[in-house]
Amino acid sequence: MNFIKMHGLGNDFILVNLFTEPEIDYQNLAKDWCHRQLGIGADGLVLIQPPEKKENHFKMTIYNSDGSEADMCGNAIRCFAKYVYEKKMVDLEEFRIETRAGVMVPKVNVVEGKVVSVQVDMGKPRFKPDEIPINLPTQEVIDKKVRVGDGYYRINALSMGNPHCVIFVDDVDHYPVEKVGPIIECDPIFPARVNVEFVEVLNRKEIKMRVWERGAGLTLACGTGACASVVACVKNDLTVPEVTVHLPGGDLFIKWAKDDHVYMTGPATYVYTGQINI
Amino acid sequence: MNFIKMHGLGNDFILVNLFTEPEIDYQNLAKDWCHRQLGIGADGLVLIQPPEKKENHFKMTIYNSDGSEADMCGNAIRCFAKYVYEKKMVDLEEFRIETRAGVMVPKVNVVEGKVVSVQVDMGKPRFKPDEIPINLPTQEVIDKKVRVGDGYYRINALSMGNPHCVIFVDDVDHYPVEKVGPIIECDPIFPARVNVEFVEVLNRKEIKMRVWERGAGLTLACGTGACASVVACVKNDLTVPEVTVHLPGGDLFIKWAKDDHVYMTGPATYVYTGQINI
Repeated sequence: MNFIKMHGLGNDFILVNLFTEPEIDYQNLAKDWCHRQLGIGADGLVLIQPPEKKENHFKMTIYNSDGSEADMCGNAIRCFAKYVYEKKMVDLEEFRIETRAGVMVPKVNVVEGKVVSVQVDMGKPRFKPDEIPINLPTQEVIDKKVRVGDGYYRINALSMGNPHCVIFVDDVDHYPVEKVGPIIECDPIFPARVNVEFVEVLNRKEIKMRVWERGAGLTLACGTGACASVVACVKNDLTVPEVTVHLPGGDLFIKWAKDDHVYMTGPATYVYTGQINI
Repeated sequence: MNFIKMHGLGNDFILVNLFTEPEIDYQNLAKDWCHRQLGIGADGLVLIQPPEKKENHFKMTIYNSDGSEADMCGNAIRCFAKYVYEKKMVDLEEFRIETRAGVMVPKVNVVEGKVVSVQVDMGKPRFKPDEIPINLPTQEVIDKKVRVGDGYYRINALSMGNPHCVIFVDDVDHYPVEKVGPIIECDPIFPARVNVEFVEVLNRKEIKMRVWERGAGLTLACGTGACASVVACVKNDLTVPEVTVHLPGGDLFIKWAKDDHVYMTGPATYVYTGQINI
């Protein structure tokens, strides 16, 4: 069984190409393979599959390291897109990938045959409380002072396919993300729990973000979290709609476009290829 | 560049066979390769090398995940022995491996061509302070109350080729190893730093141990640490000299024999083979 190890800003994945590798019970394998000492070690297992509908090019399935299935992951799909393009499995620079969160259309930026970055249409932000979900009787939750956990926070809540809570802070490097993050993640105001982004605005084109991911804790980067943060910045007139987001794992470029879609551009990196017995 | 990923009780290593792979600056690569998200991910990098002296069969070099060189590692040498035997690089069941801690002579237990466990002669324990090294004006350091870091601890210090500090505790599962370990590791009383073992004696034939490894932190198992712990148990008349050691990653069987050598028997496990660009 062949696999590829890649990462997007330190969010790392085992990729298996089901065009050449056998169909087996990968969901059961994901937990063992993702184990950092006893297995291959990764945040998730990504399957590269033929599409179900012929107008699409691929299907992507993602299993988290706990064996649960993810809807979509911005860092994973950049790795997926780089792999299938560089392996010449597709000769287009934009192609259609089926995911649990709908069809995604990544666009690869190619220099001398190599994919240097990938732009992904992350879809439209959603603001209605029941779409996020958040238990607040209001139209939208932007710059709302809300009691969560042990105190009051000015929060911005929205969905990028998954729930986000964006909080602006003065000095994100020294903010106690690992203390405040889990309190907000698990507050009953968020019935499906929430990803929590702490954002420092550097100027109108640059922000710095640290994230507490739902079910994963502190991570080096979160693509949907970077999108949610820029949307929250624009809603509060803190930045323009095209922003570089500095994350602990590296930079993402986020554009909230006129068509209301959020486009994310970032790198993907090969680490190695491997063979494992099953 | 080809590598093999193996583990001994969850203490995991990247092995590179220098009989077939090029000589490059592996010490500089070790830190990058051992990184869990951005690299291959491992506790250490193990080089399988030709011996320097013709009476020996192999040489083993180990780099920790921080890039420092280890003297010797019991879990790594079991992986090493299983690999070279199963790859038919040696046709003996006992063979001689040069390490920074001297020549080691592992013995493979073979069932149907597969190495099911490996016994390693870990050498003689050494107790003189300058052999460990520890800065104390005494003959040996067994059950000595010593001020380290923020308080006093009853410690047992000895060398198994590398320095160890064994501390007996009542409930090792709930002991704050990650807090106390680094304080003792870096205390100036240990000029070369130290591996710290926390040991709960279950009965005269069984102990439970957790370890804080010098340069690696919390790990699932440490072979030389298990040996040092059993020696410390016998010196304090807490166990017989043949003891099963329960570690978070699994069990090791340790025998402090009449010839004063410590013999360790335990498993080694293949995970996968890989190829990485350098």
